[in-house]
Amino acid sequence: MSRRTRALLGGVAVTSGAAGVLHYADAPALVAFVVAAFALAGLAWLVSFTTEQVGGHFGPAVTGLLQSTLGNLPEFFVVVFALSAGEVVVAQFSIIGSIFANALLVLGFVIVVGARESSDGIMRFSPRLPQDTATLLFLSGFIIVLIGVSAGTHDPASDDIVTISAIASVLVLIVYGVWVYGYLKTEAAAAGVPRAPATMPLRTSIALLALGGVGAAFVSEWFVDSLRPTIDELGISAQFAGLVIVAIAGNAVEHVVGVVLAAKGQADLAISVVKNSVAQIAAFLAPALVLVSLLFDHHLTFDLAPVYVAALALTILSIWQVTGDGEATYFEGAALIATYVILAVFTLYE
Amino acid sequence: MSRRTRALLGGVAVTSGAAGVLHYADAPALVAFVVAAFALAGLAWLVSFTTEQVGGHFGPAVTGLLQSTLGNLPEFFVVVFALSAGEVVVAQFSIIGSIFANALLVLGFVIVVGARESSDGIMRFSPRLPQDTATLLFLSGFIIVLIGVSAGTHDPASDDIVTISAIASVLVLIVYGVWVYGYLKTEAAAAGVPRAPATMPLRTSIALLALGGVGAAFVSEWFVDSLRPTIDELGISAQFAGLVIVAIAGNAVEHVVGVVLAAKGQADLAISVVKNSVAQIAAFLAPALVLVSLLFDHHLTFDLAPVYVAALALTILSIWQVTGDGEATYFEGAALIATYVILAVFTLYE
Amino acid sequence: MSRRTRALLGGVAVTSGAAGVLHYADAPALVAFVVAAFALAGLAWLVSFTTEQVGGHFGPAVTGLLQSTLGNLPEFFVVVFALSAGEVVVAQFSIIGSIFANALLVLGFVIVVGARESSDGIMRFSPRLPQDTATLLFLSGFIIVLIGVSAGTHDPASDDIVTISAIASVLVLIVYGVWVYGYLKTEAAAAGVPRAPATMPLRTSIALLALGGVGAAFVSEWFVDSLRPTIDELGISAQFAGLVIVAIAGNAVEHVVGVVLAAKGQADLAISVVKNSVAQIAAFLAPALVLVSLLFDHHLTFDLAPVYVAALALTILSIWQVTGDGEATYFEGAALIATYVILAVFTLYE
Repeated sequence: MSRRTRALLGGVAVTSGAAGVLHYADAPALVAFVVAAFALAGLAWLVSFTTEQVGGHFGPAVTGLLQSTLGNLPEFFVVVFALSAGEVVVAQFSIIGSIFANALLVLGFVIVVGARESSDGIMRFSPRLPQDTATLLFLSGFIIVLIGVSAGTHDPASDDIVTISAIASVLVLIVYGVWVYGYLKTEAAAAGVPRAPATMPLRTSIALLALGGVGAAFVSEWFVDSLRPTIDELGISAQFAGLVIVAIAGNAVEHVVGVVLAAKGQADLAISVVKNSVAQIAAFLAPALVLVSLLFDHHLTFDLAPVYVAALALTILSIWQVTGDGEATYFEGAALIATYVILAVFTLYE
Repeated sequence: MSRRTRALLGGVAVTSGAAGVLHYADAPALVAFVVAAFALAGLAWLVSFTTEQVGGHFGPAVTGLLQSTLGNLPEFFVVVFALSAGEVVVAQFSIIGSIFANALLVLGFVIVVGARESSDGIMRFSPRLPQDTATLLFLSGFIIVLIGVSAGTHDPASDDIVTISAIASVLVLIVYGVWVYGYLKTEAAAAGVPRAPATMPLRTSIALLALGGVGAAFVSEWFVDSLRPTIDELGISAQFAGLVIVAIAGNAVEHVVGVVLAAKGQADLAISVVKNSVAQIAAFLAPALVLVSLLFDHHLTFDLAPVYVAALALTILSIWQVTGDGEATYFEGAALIATYVILAVFTLYE
Repeated sequence: MSRRTRALLGGVAVTSGAAGVLHYADAPALVAFVVAAFALAGLAWLVSFTTEQVGGHFGPAVTGLLQSTLGNLPEFFVVVFALSAGEVVVAQFSIIGSIFANALLVLGFVIVVGARESSDGIMRFSPRLPQDTATLLFLSGFIIVLIGVSAGTHDPASDDIVTISAIASVLVLIVYGVWVYGYLKTEAAAAGVPRAPATMPLRTSIALLALGGVGAAFVSEWFVDSLRPTIDELGISAQFAGLVIVAIAGNAVEHVVGVVLAAKGQADLAISVVKNSVAQIAAFLAPALVLVSLLFDHHLTFDLAPVYVAALALTILSIWQVTGDGEATYFEGAALIATYVILAVFTLYE
């Protein structure tokens, strides 16, 4: 374990501990919230890092499989606790916020950095993964748009949104499973999935992964707990909180690794980190949470406010347009970032 | 004529006869409906098969021209009889249902089968036809979305939907004509259009085609006649009936040939059978029926409920995304099929 | 200066003078309007022509920069005078009308002519510029759709459309700046930007450009002044006036040059003339006017009626679909023209 890794692990442990103390000491909500947000971002990194370490002992297919399922564990806990606290809007916006933050903000930065790195200003990568992600996003987008328009126009089917969402979730999960199976078989064998040689013993990795998971569960609860008073104190909208703050803390920070890979000129790996994450949230985490939420009083459905349905549809098209041809320029990265900022500004006025 | 062809012809004749007997004997609606549905699917195959036989005597350009105009004869009759019976929703949903069934369900199966057939799991075909189909679908989609949004927002132009639909239909038909002309000139000469050497004498082929057409006209009426009581008895929505039952019986069954071609590794032919059919329904059958319906009391327009406008727009984008690059994988086929199933489930709750 | 150029300059001068006389003599509105429309189209050509001449003395980068900023001067004045006259609908529809007219009508004709010119019926060009234009249009489209849906659904953010439009405009202008910088650096150095060797002395060119600009300012005011009485007299909708008449007079005529280039087989130049113009209106002129309009009583925002939001979104997708692969056929040009005609017909019924 490198000194840097040790320092990071220590930092995560300390911040998580501080978040717990602040929570149980009934500290001012804003302080508790900020510390919990940092702890959550750190735990998201820890889960992502240890997943890769465990996978490193078994090869790329296992790494990919672990990443495809455990990669959004902290996000998962945040949404579960938000739902159990009755914060349905925050829960929904954490999920679609993660899609926006990764697909627009993180991908935009990856492209800006990657294009600067390239000698002719064009970042090049295999178009296969962006096309696959587009297909998965179109599928999830189809059900979200269908339900959004149905609810918005008081279509008869809008009375059965919970049932339709659940059935659609099962179908999306099946397609995601088919994709992961095919992707791991072909791409992982080649070079599409980031592979880190394990630098820690398997036992340590598993222990740290377990610790990260348990930690994420606790910190998520504290984070969600302090979210509502913080929103009220700052006078921001729940949409902004979910779309910007929760999404960046719970999800985007860990993808700084994509930007780092882009800066090293590893365009394919950089794109795959971000793209896989977007595909996973849209086609695995979201439908899985819809099904899990059936156990709760407040159900998560694909029913979103029309503006966000439209924003999501256009985001799916934008990232397909920018990356579908296997080339991206500095300016295209800037356009994605600007799209995210426009959306974030918009939520400020909700 | 092969023994298999004879058996099929006999089967179609018997089923059509049975449908007639059940109709005039006032048999229970459900039984009459099911038999008429089978007869209709059989006649759709017969028209498609004999069209190809007649064309086989003249070369690919004539085959293409015949297929481009007669290919959806049974569908045409179903819509005409549905309109004359005042079943406007069934008429509309038969048309867009045919688009959904072919573009999502049949194309999905073609890709699943074609990708399995390929050694590296990727079905490859010329992107020209998928791109052309996308252009035609964008044109039809443009008018459908324009009118749908206009009607949904009580825009002033929504008072003149019949007139606007008729003018737009003429324009779409002109563009379709330009496309068919160019397509037959370039592609048919090459290898884009499925060509079967004629196995029957021309006279027999024409006679059977005429019989198939007349049969389709009669059976369509019986089919539509038993549709409403069947819908009421089963308690299903008119949308589900049109989108799933009518679409599959009147249209999709004949395209099993696409799946068969895909299984034989003939990717380009398989794609062209399905794609041409989709283009034809959207840019020839639909506008032609809009114009024909001006003679009826109940007019067919491009005015659809918002959810189906959205579903159509996303379907157009999905199939363009999946096939526009000339490559499709198993998983992409699965995603198209899942999209169709989600839509079908949705209509169950209307 | 060639005899033809002199004749054209004389024609523009005479028509502009006549427009002024008719304006101050209180001539019948319809006559004054028609003459002003011709004068405006002529001045649009003059500004475009002299911009190129001035640029010809400095090289492609300066030409590109001048064209990217001054290219829509007449359009700019028309919108400013329309806003100051309180004609917000005309102002808005002049801008989006210019996008529709260039992206569908002019591009359609360019492709029809260019594809006929090509030996195999396929016009070929670099897909880079169409892809860049698509990215810019997606960015502008994102904010237009977001605000359109927000206003249409009475979302809370719809109370702050002026503020959100202004902030979004600044972001879009930044991205446009990044694009122009990169485009001029790479493409202009190569062959993407139309270059005409200067045929007039620099001094003459600058004088004529200044005259053209001043003339455009005056004629625009006369044009807008006679617009309302003309609309009322002809009984046409403000939407049709803006989308068809103003758009073609103020913008499309100058792009006849694109069609001429296509006829000469210069596919890349022809596409770049039209594409740059579309990108410029959407990502430079429109946001610039939104910001300028903050000085007026009537503000220009990105808030459009839902049908036009939808039409714009589909137009962006259509031209991306047709040109994004670097190939376009006769039939695809016809489809774009038909899309424009359908839209124009639609506005007749508003």
